[in-house]
Amino acid sequence: MSASREAAGPVPLPADTTTHGLPSSSTSEEYPDIQQGASLLLALRLQDRPILLIGGGVVASQRLYFLLESGAHITIVSPSPLDPSISYRISDPNTSPQITWHDRPYLGREDSIKVTEYDLVMTAIDNNPLSQEVCEMCREKRVMVNVADIPPQCDFYFGAQLRKGPLQILISTGGLGPRAGAMIRDIIRNALPENIEESVEGVGLLRSELRKRAPGVGGQRGQERMDWMKELCDVWGLAQMERFRDEQVRKYVLDEGWEKKKMVAPSEVKQGQRKTTAEIWEQVKHFGHTQWAAGLGGFGAGMAVATVATIYLTRNAAR
Amino acid sequence: MSASREAAGPVPLPADTTTHGLPSSSTSEEYPDIQQGASLLLALRLQDRPILLIGGGVVASQRLYFLLESGAHITIVSPSPLDPSISYRISDPNTSPQITWHDRPYLGREDSIKVTEYDLVMTAIDNNPLSQEVCEMCREKRVMVNVADIPPQCDFYFGAQLRKGPLQILISTGGLGPRAGAMIRDIIRNALPENIEESVEGVGLLRSELRKRAPGVGGQRGQERMDWMKELCDVWGLAQMERFRDEQVRKYVLDEGWEKKKMVAPSEVKQGQRKTTAEIWEQVKHFGHTQWAAGLGGFGAGMAVATVATIYLTRNAAR
Repeated sequence: MSASREAAGPVPLPADTTTHGLPSSSTSEEYPDIQQGASLLLALRLQDRPILLIGGGVVASQRLYFLLESGAHITIVSPSPLDPSISYRISDPNTSPQITWHDRPYLGREDSIKVTEYDLVMTAIDNNPLSQEVCEMCREKRVMVNVADIPPQCDFYFGAQLRKGPLQILISTGGLGPRAGAMIRDIIRNALPENIEESVEGVGLLRSELRKRAPGVGGQRGQERMDWMKELCDVWGLAQMERFRDEQVRKYVLDEGWEKKKMVAPSEVKQGQRKTTAEIWEQVKHFGHTQWAAGLGGFGAGMAVATVATIYLTRNAAR
Repeated sequence: MSASREAAGPVPLPADTTTHGLPSSSTSEEYPDIQQGASLLLALRLQDRPILLIGGGVVASQRLYFLLESGAHITIVSPSPLDPSISYRISDPNTSPQITWHDRPYLGREDSIKVTEYDLVMTAIDNNPLSQEVCEMCREKRVMVNVADIPPQCDFYFGAQLRKGPLQILISTGGLGPRAGAMIRDIIRNALPENIEESVEGVGLLRSELRKRAPGVGGQRGQERMDWMKELCDVWGLAQMERFRDEQVRKYVLDEGWEKKKMVAPSEVKQGQRKTTAEIWEQVKHFGHTQWAAGLGGFGAGMAVATVATIYLTRNAAR
């Protein structure tokens, strides 16, 4: 069993890395051994993509939840009664546009709904021969399929999942121990910094503004952008990154750091950077009714307090 | 931005769960809000599946590493020179059967290699128009594609990856912060128990033997099997699970636990359970030269010590 050795693998560079031509010789010591038997772990983007879900029980309801969060369009084929949470999602106006429900059993090869019309197919039914048939149909047409409870018929597994806003984590035991996977998820949940969601959000905002200042894909510019971002992340650390959610902090870091080709340490940046008069005026121009109303109300209240206080002090002074 | 709220989601049951018909009413408070914008995180099984990899630089070499570990067959289309690690994998007899290399550029729509022949397509080249063309070809044919460095052209991302034998973890920031993802991976690596790999392996061995004793998919038996496994995992905890790698421990837990419909606590089981005479004889039959030599050596040493001791005691007694 290849599982018995450590195989953390090389530290993979981020997905958008484009470093090229690092000089190196070809000796086997440099390259880690391949440990077969792994899955390929992926984050699929499914916004508006068609997915076929056959079944309407508890397992199907769990599939549906993750599919709805991914923004997919889900076609459910299952006779009533459905699991109550599926019924709820079908009737809830927030999610109903994402779901098409056919209140009938799936008929396999005879069915008018063809697996080739979908990006992924998932079955969660207690009918093993039908599951087998769906699996075969998908394999023939190269459509990826998951058959709940029958690992050999699965092209993909779900494992244990953890989501904190934009941060998503998948824990897979390759089917060896679903419960162990869930226990590992709990360890991870406890180990993550409390503000991890805000940190990822902050660094995402900074990265997107940097891309606006230095647009383009790959090449010299892309490499500079990535190197600067990487170093900045290392200097700030996860805990401080949440401060990038503050527009003024981002502006300071980009103006004083990126534009001047240097690093800005967290200690250099005060939360709520000093604003110039022009920036304050820019904000005032965008005041809405509520801000003006609040301003006027505050002005009135201030006048009233000042008046009363003045009268009081004047009287006391008069005694 | 939907990212600003916590959305850990419901605790998903393991992938092979088949609990059905839990009674419940349909009120919205029971069901967590859907937070769109997520990816669907999956573990793909790619053993012997055909994958097309266009490009031969550092990024392509990272893709290749993970594809080789998944047991896929990879067709690389890229002119020389390749990244040295790719050349190494092509020439290494351990991995060369998994790779077909075409030493030429990919020609897009004109190319004789068609994307429809592959389960996944990945490009990692510095030619943006060609990447765009490959992406369009894949979208038309519903083949999932990843274009390195161009997120909008990606149907899937890789994120940061961590592998410990059968345990694999994917950390995705939805493209917001690749470096932050890598930093989170380091936190997770440090938080995992040292023997996590052995624990997952142990629980996998136990689970597979349980399935042999109680075969079948789903139904009443499947539910009992899963419930017992889940409770056992909770009673033992991750740290103790590594003991399931010992065949005698597994046998005891299954005989005294599963067969008798009860739980066995870790303290009840001594490492290296007491063996029956038949079992000891079974082991003796499989003794090799070294065991026999060790046994004879021990016998000789025992005789020598006993002789010296006897002589010594006899002399003393004689005085």
